[in-house]
Formats: sequence, structure tokens, C-alpha cells
Amino acid sequence: MAIDAGLSAYAAPLGFIEAGAGTFAGAIPTILKVNSANSLSRAKEGPSQAVTGSVKDALRLGCAAVGFTIYPGSDVAYDMMEEIAEMGREAKASGLAVVIWSYPRGGTISKQGETAIDIAAYAAHMAALLGAHIIKVKPPTDFLELDAAKKVYEQQKIDVSSAAARYRHIVQSCFNGRRIVVFSGGDAKDDNSILNEARAIRDGGGNGSIIGRNTFQRPRDQALKLLDSLIRVYKGEA
Amino acid sequence: MAIDAGLSAYAAPLGFIEAGAGTFAGAIPTILKVNSANSLSRAKEGPSQAVTGSVKDALRLGCAAVGFTIYPGSDVAYDMMEEIAEMGREAKASGLAVVIWSYPRGGTISKQGETAIDIAAYAAHMAALLGAHIIKVKPPTDFLELDAAKKVYEQQKIDVSSAAARYRHIVQSCFNGRRIVVFSGGDAKDDNSILNEARAIRDGGGNGSIIGRNTFQRPRDQALKLLDSLIRVYKGEA
Amino acid sequence: MAIDAGLSAYAAPLGFIEAGAGTFAGAIPTILKVNSANSLSRAKEGPSQAVTGSVKDALRLGCAAVGFTIYPGSDVAYDMMEEIAEMGREAKASGLAVVIWSYPRGGTISKQGETAIDIAAYAAHMAALLGAHIIKVKPPTDFLELDAAKKVYEQQKIDVSSAAARYRHIVQSCFNGRRIVVFSGGDAKDDNSILNEARAIRDGGGNGSIIGRNTFQRPRDQALKLLDSLIRVYKGEA
Amino acid sequence: MAIDAGLSAYAAPLGFIEAGAGTFAGAIPTILKVNSANSLSRAKEGPSQAVTGSVKDALRLGCAAVGFTIYPGSDVAYDMMEEIAEMGREAKASGLAVVIWSYPRGGTISKQGETAIDIAAYAAHMAALLGAHIIKVKPPTDFLELDAAKKVYEQQKIDVSSAAARYRHIVQSCFNGRRIVVFSGGDAKDDNSILNEARAIRDGGGNGSIIGRNTFQRPRDQALKLLDSLIRVYKGEA
Amino acid sequence: MAIDAGLSAYAAPLGFIEAGAGTFAGAIPTILKVNSANSLSRAKEGPSQAVTGSVKDALRLGCAAVGFTIYPGSDVAYDMMEEIAEMGREAKASGLAVVIWSYPRGGTISKQGETAIDIAAYAAHMAALLGAHIIKVKPPTDFLELDAAKKVYEQQKIDVSSAAARYRHIVQSCFNGRRIVVFSGGDAKDDNSILNEARAIRDGGGNGSIIGRNTFQRPRDQALKLLDSLIRVYKGEA
Repeated sequence: MAIDAGLSAYAAPLGFIEAGAGTFAGAIPTILKVNSANSLSRAKEGPSQAVTGSVKDALRLGCAAVGFTIYPGSDVAYDMMEEIAEMGREAKASGLAVVIWSYPRGGTISKQGETAIDIAAYAAHMAALLGAHIIKVKPPTDFLELDAAKKVYEQQKIDVSSAAARYRHIVQSCFNGRRIVVFSGGDAKDDNSILNEARAIRDGGGNGSIIGRNTFQRPRDQALKLLDSLIRVYKGEA
Repeated sequence: MAIDAGLSAYAAPLGFIEAGAGTFAGAIPTILKVNSANSLSRAKEGPSQAVTGSVKDALRLGCAAVGFTIYPGSDVAYDMMEEIAEMGREAKASGLAVVIWSYPRGGTISKQGETAIDIAAYAAHMAALLGAHIIKVKPPTDFLELDAAKKVYEQQKIDVSSAAARYRHIVQSCFNGRRIVVFSGGDAKDDNSILNEARAIRDGGGNGSIIGRNTFQRPRDQALKLLDSLIRVYKGEA
Repeated sequence: MAIDAGLSAYAAPLGFIEAGAGTFAGAIPTILKVNSANSLSRAKEGPSQAVTGSVKDALRLGCAAVGFTIYPGSDVAYDMMEEIAEMGREAKASGLAVVIWSYPRGGTISKQGETAIDIAAYAAHMAALLGAHIIKVKPPTDFLELDAAKKVYEQQKIDVSSAAARYRHIVQSCFNGRRIVVFSGGDAKDDNSILNEARAIRDGGGNGSIIGRNTFQRPRDQALKLLDSLIRVYKGEA
Repeated sequence: MAIDAGLSAYAAPLGFIEAGAGTFAGAIPTILKVNSANSLSRAKEGPSQAVTGSVKDALRLGCAAVGFTIYPGSDVAYDMMEEIAEMGREAKASGLAVVIWSYPRGGTISKQGETAIDIAAYAAHMAALLGAHIIKVKPPTDFLELDAAKKVYEQQKIDVSSAAARYRHIVQSCFNGRRIVVFSGGDAKDDNSILNEARAIRDGGGNGSIIGRNTFQRPRDQALKLLDSLIRVYKGEA
Repeated sequence: MAIDAGLSAYAAPLGFIEAGAGTFAGAIPTILKVNSANSLSRAKEGPSQAVTGSVKDALRLGCAAVGFTIYPGSDVAYDMMEEIAEMGREAKASGLAVVIWSYPRGGTISKQGETAIDIAAYAAHMAALLGAHIIKVKPPTDFLELDAAKKVYEQQKIDVSSAAARYRHIVQSCFNGRRIVVFSGGDAKDDNSILNEARAIRDGGGNGSIIGRNTFQRPRDQALKLLDSLIRVYKGEA
């Protein structure tokens, strides 16, 4: 379906890309997701993921990039950062792009704080410092998690009131737009809200969105239509 | 006995295959079981296994595959997954198949949940994502362990009422049948129940079963007869 | 003294063999004991040993084998097993024999259980599965540590009443005699009890015994006489 | 701005130097900061940093040095020291300088003790022993943290009453001036106090100061003027 | 000063030898101290040191040996032993001598037990087993730490009443004098007590003493005179 809709890239773990290698090859750029979590893990303060793929796997499977998730705030965040730092070095030496999913959680971060604008901007900045070419974060809310951040945001009058302003702030935190930032879609919702979110991302300078269950869980023709509308939003046509 | 009965493959740890290398070689494909547990270990929430074999051992001993057990749900499940991810990479580069035993346990999984259909399907899916060619799971019951799963199974009306339906569901969770799935036999029982289980596996699209003590603990002629019946079931002759 | 008495091999840690390399070379096969414990360690549930020697050391010092102790039952038993698995692989590739001392302790094993026949047979079997050519265990008692084992031993009527029967059971647990099994001597005692123990080992199919302080702590001429008697026992002459 | 002001070197993490490689190259020596912390980490007694850069990265990006932070007193201080020891070895073999930020914290060190003169001198000495060419510490106060140190400082009449005396003491602790010592600026303040601090560093034999937010958070022309004054202080002109 | 006094060797950590490489080279053999502790560490039961130097560093700096401290009795003693075992192997392959400082502490060892004769002899023996060419211990007292040792010392009538007898016992514990044993000086004291200690070491068969603050904290001419007297003691002239 991703191929038919003309999307930019498709990300999946090792086994999935191996199983579909014959189908994907040459049809759409693939991103090998080199670490993966599952919902049976119960680590709440020190969540992590298993490293299940490698740069060599990505090259063998014809992928264009490796994708890696970090959990800023997790008690093992430094370990995750060291893993992608090392893997990113190898990826770049092999001509692959590096995509980092930066999803704050664990440690002292509250549930609401996981999508707070101050935490999200910080998390995106960390991914940029780690050398990511493409940074993926969740759409942030206007909540501010850290007291120290509240002061700075008020003092420097950083606008985080609208979705577009927040997206713009995130993009600025990634070396002022020198890095590509994309936003994940989150929970299932109707077509209109998805398209509005995409418009805000576009207006804030974001480079796109990641879409999963909002297409998989629709009938194929409706899903293709939605994807087509999304692409037109990013092209500035809708 | 395995040779005499015409079975597909025989799996054992390092020392055993070394001791029998002269007997097995060329007679039956062997799988080097590269990690092993023992019942003296008392880790209940973070169970694991010792990595005692390597791809090099498998090549030296003329094995056709490496076999590895993961414990989805264990507090050290990610560590186990990283071990087989790395070893699987090396195995594939050497032309060996990768077999993953996926046995949920540890963490917050209940005793009943270890064979629950939702957990079993998830565990089989994880093994597939890890790049297994062949996936081995225990025959699942119709119990549902996770509340979140209960909703989805009811909502999407996934049939798990019969053994065959459950086997079919597991096979679907492994990239819709693109991977080989086999089921282990469990506790000792009579010939009829063993053959019925095999019929359900066959009807559900499963690719076979693993059999151990149900043959070792029978007289040799009875065991050979049982194995012969089993093979006829999978060929659709019984 | 070992040289004068015509024994089969001499085992010691790195520094000792280095210091005596000039004396031993060519006179008696030496086993480099590659891990070592000391009595200052206070780990009771997770006892281990320090890896102080390597296969390269063994080759440099002209040793015929590497020796490694595992503690089945220890909370770090899997770690120890992984160490010898890796080192055993390298040893075999270099043409060295692998000797495993399998001494159950730690975890939930009781003091009496450390020499229980069920535990001892299981421990010997583990060493065999790990790929040992020679397995060294302590002389077992007729105590049964595990409830599950008690049932099986009674049901299958495994005779563990005499020392010879127990030695035979241990030897069977090591691939039915395809591996060499030797027994350690234990606490200091008089010549007669040592020779009787040796006779039981011989009758049970064991391949020899390890002797240390029972010779070092005797005057040289008495010790040589005892060793000579021992050798005659194993040759079936006494 | 650093380029325009004629400063000596610029230090930043991987992603930042990658993003600006085209701008910096040849214009100002850069230091790749190979480990980094973030304020979401909550480790108080065992603080550390993530190793995110390597000597190979530094060479690829044309850096003149690698920079590494150690936290003397942290419960994981030895681990950090081992990391920079290894990386420093590789850096020197590649012709790169080694800069160590030595910032005491964690363990039993009090908040006030983090900048105590005895701790600061000890921390600088540790960095020197680790093989640093350039050592960066925070400006120390006249507070003495350790009782043992109080005795020695009184007995040997070590003068720590003035800023210049303290800087001199730190420089002496680094092999009597055989190593370059620079001081970090700390919290934002006005131009005069910054210049006075620089004069004390100069008088104490220090080799310079590190400046960050005191320039970034000023208008560009004021910042450049301040930097120019600072340089004149170190040249002995102001 | 060490050069002027004609001493045998000088031991120091990486940074120090790097800083003085031009001065030392060819003038006095140097020992690279490859692990180091600092007094800010608060590990009481599991004390360790940071590995800050390597065999490659020692070769690059023209050192004659590597020096390593182990803490027998520490809860991480096995880890330290594994570090020096590996490093010692590399040192010997490169033609460097291996010096082990064996300082019991941690675990269940009492403060008094750190210099008890039974512990000291055991610690020296461990260093010998680890393959040290030169073993450095602290001068032992006649205290016996372990109950098991008390029995053996009484039974076998081992004389530990005089300093010379204790030194002799330590030397015997190191393969009966096949290894060089030196003793460290301890707390500052007057010239006479230092020379008497040296006489006892000489009479007990010890191979020398290590001296540090007893020279650094004296005026240069007095220190040189003391060192000259010490050397005459070891030559049997005083």
C-alpha cells in the first residue's frame, strides 16, 4: 500500500523487511528499525528497547537508513544514546541515513510531560546532537513539564500556544532547521483532524508525518485517498 | 531413533552433538541448540538461558541450523533478543537456518498466561520480527492474558475457540504464513491425543510439531509406530 | 612428586605453572586451571571464580588441557557456563582437551545437596552438555535434594545405595560413558579409605580420581606408596 | 561569532559539529565533546554522561582535540576514567589533543564541596594523571571539603585566600604547570566581574577561560567587545 | 631524586610518566601503574581501582613493567584479578615485567585483618598465582584474621612472632622464593625505624622495599642519605 500511495519511506524491524525484501526492493526506500520494544516489558523508570538489527543487516536488505528509538528521561537513556552513537557512526560510514525516534519517558517524567513542549524540544535537540539526519517526535502539547523551563519560556516569550508555533519551536531546536523533523500520528482519528495536524506541521516548518494505523485500519481505498490528501497538504496544495 | 523414523531434524546442545557427531553426520539434519537452561536456576521474573553454543560450533559439527530460546515477558527478554539477533545475523551469513523457541514467561506473565493465545501469538510474532526462519511455540489455550488484547479479540471477532483456529491465528501472526511455525508437544500423553493435536496443527496451517519425551519414554517399537502415524497426519493421510 | 609417581596429569593456575614450567615441561601433562576461587570471597548465593588463565597461556606453557570450574545452582551459573563455552571452543580449535570441575553450590542448593546424587548426576550431565572431554565431580552421597528427582529415582528404580552404583549413575549421565569422569578426593583420610573409594570408582566405571592434599600432607615416601597403590587399583590389580 | 572574535577553540557534541562542519572547517580549531549529559538524568550519587562521540568522529570532522567530562566523586567515576583513558590513548595515537573537564560531584561530595579548593585541586590532579593535555575546572572557592585536607592545608600553609592564589594552587596540582589549565565561567554576570575573574586566572598562572552563555546571551556587538577585552586580559594588556 | 639515589625503579600513573618522559627515559626503569584509586571513592565492601593505563602505553613510554593493584577480599576482587590476568598476558607477550600490589581490603576483612599475617601471606600467594614477577605487600603484623588459619598456624607451628619470620613466611608463600617480593613503607617515621624494617625484610628473604613519602617529605639531602643507608642494608653492609 505504501508503494501504491507514493510515500517517502517505510520503516520496520528486521524480520519484517527480510520477509518482504522481494516486494519492497527498489519500490520504496526502507528504513531498518534497528531497535524494538514490546508491551510485555514492565520497566517503567528505565524503559529501553532491544537492539535487533545492525548496519550490516540494513545494507544486506537494501535499506536507505537505520531507525533507532531513544527514550530521553529513562534511567538507561545514556545507554540507548551510546548504542545509536556507535551505530550511527557505522551507518554514516556506509552511506546510510540515521533516523532517530525521540520519545521522552521514564525517570521522573510525568505522563503529561511525555508530550510537553519543553521536553519535546529538548528531546528533539538531543537527537540532533546525537547526529540524526531525520528526527521523529510526537506532536507536542502546550504543557510545560520543568519549572526551570517555565521561567525561560515566559522570560524569552517563546510562543507555544498553537500547534504550528510548537512545531516551529521543535524545528528550531534541531539546529534551526538544518535537520529534517517529522511528527508521528498518535491515536486513531478521523480524516479531518489528521489533515489539520498535517497543515500545522507544514506551517511550523516540519518536514512530514509518520502514519501507521490510521491507514492500516481503514479500508484500502479510503486509506489511499487519505494518504493522497496528506501529500497534497505537504505540497501546499490543501 | 530419529534417523530410523525419518524425521526432519534433531535439536540438541553442544556436548550432545559433539558426542554423537559420528552417528548423526549425513543421517539427519541437526539443529545446534545454542542456549540452554537448567532447572537449578531460580530466576522467576528475569529467567534466561546460558549461551553455550555458537555459529562456528554449528558449522564445525555440520548442523543445518541454530536454535535459540527467548522468554518474551522476562525482565531480561531484551538481552536474550539481542543475543539471537546477533547470532542470527552470523548464522544467515554462514548459510544456516535460524530456529527460535518462543516461550513466554517471567515479568508479570501469569502461569496461565504462558500459554494464553494472545501472549502466544505475540510471542510468535516477536520471533518472526527477530528474523527466525522457523518458530517454535507451545500449543496455546483459549485464555486471554491481557485486558487490552481481550478488547481487540472481541472487537475484531478473532476466533480462538478451537485448537485449529488458535494454530491458524498463530501462523497468521508470523507474517501471514511466510514463516514456518511448529508446536511443541508438552506433557506425556497417550497416542490418540498426540495424533489429534497434530491434526489440529495441520488444519490450522502449522508446519509440524516437536516431539521428545513422548518417544524417548516409550518402548522403541511403539515409539516408531507413533512417529510414523504422526508423519502420516502431517501428510494429510490420517 | 607427580612426575616421580607416574600420574596422568597435573592441574594448577597460571602463576604456578609459569614458575614450574622448566620442571614440568615434557615430564607430565599439565592442565592449566583457567579460573580460580579464594576463600575470602563471601558470595554465598551467587559464587563464582575469577578467570585468570586463557587458552593462549595454556599453549605458551605447553599444557595439554584447560580446566574450568562451574558451580551449577549458583545465581551466576549461566555466566560461568558462557565463559567455559567460549573458552572450550577456542581450546578445541587449538587441540587442547577441556576439563570441567562441576561443583554444585549457591542458589537454593542446601549444604547436603551439594553432594546429593541427583544434583551430582545433573551437574555432571551439564558439564557433558557444555562439551567437556573430562568431567570432575565430588563423590556423591545417596541423599536426594530435589522432590521431583525423588519421584523419578523411585519410579525408575535407579540404584544409588552403594558408592559403586552412584559412580555408575554419574558415568551414565555423561552420555552413557562417552565422556571421561573423574572424582575428587575430598577431606584428608587414611590410606585404606582412599583405596576403597578408588575401588568403588573403578567398579562404577569412573575413570580415575584427583588427589591433592592426601599426598602433599604425607611424608614423600608414604605419599609415593599411596599413589602407587591407587594406580594399581585403577589397573584392576588391587 | 567564535570565529569573528579570534578565540582559540570551540567545543561541541557530534551532531552540532556535523551540522556546522562546512562553516567551522579551517576557521577555528574545534574540540569534539565526546561525552554529554542532559538535565533529565536523575542520577545524584552516581552521575555520568553518555559517550556519543569517538576519535574517529573527531578525525572525520577535522577536530583538533577530543573533550571528555569526568565527575570525580561520582559512584561511577572509575568507569568514566576508564572511558577517557581508552579514548585518550586512541586520540594521542591519532595526533589529537585530550581535553578533560573535571567537575567533582556525586558520592559523598556536598554541593559546596563541588567547588571547594581541596576537591578542585584533587580533581585537576586526577585529570592530569589521566593524561590530559588541557584540564578544565570550575573557579574554586576557599572552602575546604575534606577534614584530612584541612589539616594538610593548615600545616603546610597553602594560601587559598585569594582567587589568584587558588588558581595558582590548581595549576601546581597539574604537574607544577606542565599541563594547560583553563577555567569555566559559570553563571551569567556583568562584564566587570568576568574580566576580574580572568585577571585572577592570569595572575594565578591559569591558561585561559571557557566562555559560553555570557556571550550567547548578549547582543552580538556587546559580546564581541567583551571577548576582545578578555583576550587583552590574558595577553596582560588589561 | 630517584635517579640521583640509584634506586631500582620508579612507579607512577600514565599522566605523570607522560609529563616526565623526557626526564626519566634511560635514567631509571619506570613502572607504569595501570590502575589507580582516589580517596573520593566510597566503596567500602567492594573497593576497586580505575584501569587508566595499558600495555601499549607502557611500551610507548619506555617502561620496564606494568604495575597493578588487587584488593583480595573485596567484593569485586575477581573482577580486578581478571583485569590483571588479561593485562599480564599482554605484558609478558611484549617483554614487560608484571608487578602486583596485593592489598587486602573490603568484604568481611577487618581493619586489623588488612595487615594480618595470614591474610597477607594469602594475598601474596594470590598475586603469585596470577603470574606476577614482582609482588608488593604491606609489612604484616602477627595478628591472625581467620579462625581456620589460626588452627593451621598453631598446628604446623608457623613462626610469625618476629618481623623477619613474617617476611620469610610471605616469601615462602610466593612459590618458596621463586618470585620477587617487596614491602611497602607505610606511614611516615624516623630513619632508624625505616632501616630496622629494611633489615628485617632482608633477613626474611624479602627483595626490597618501596619508599615514597618518607623521601618526598624530607629535605633533599636528608632523603638521599636515607636512601643510601637503605641500599646498604639490602646489600648486607648495614
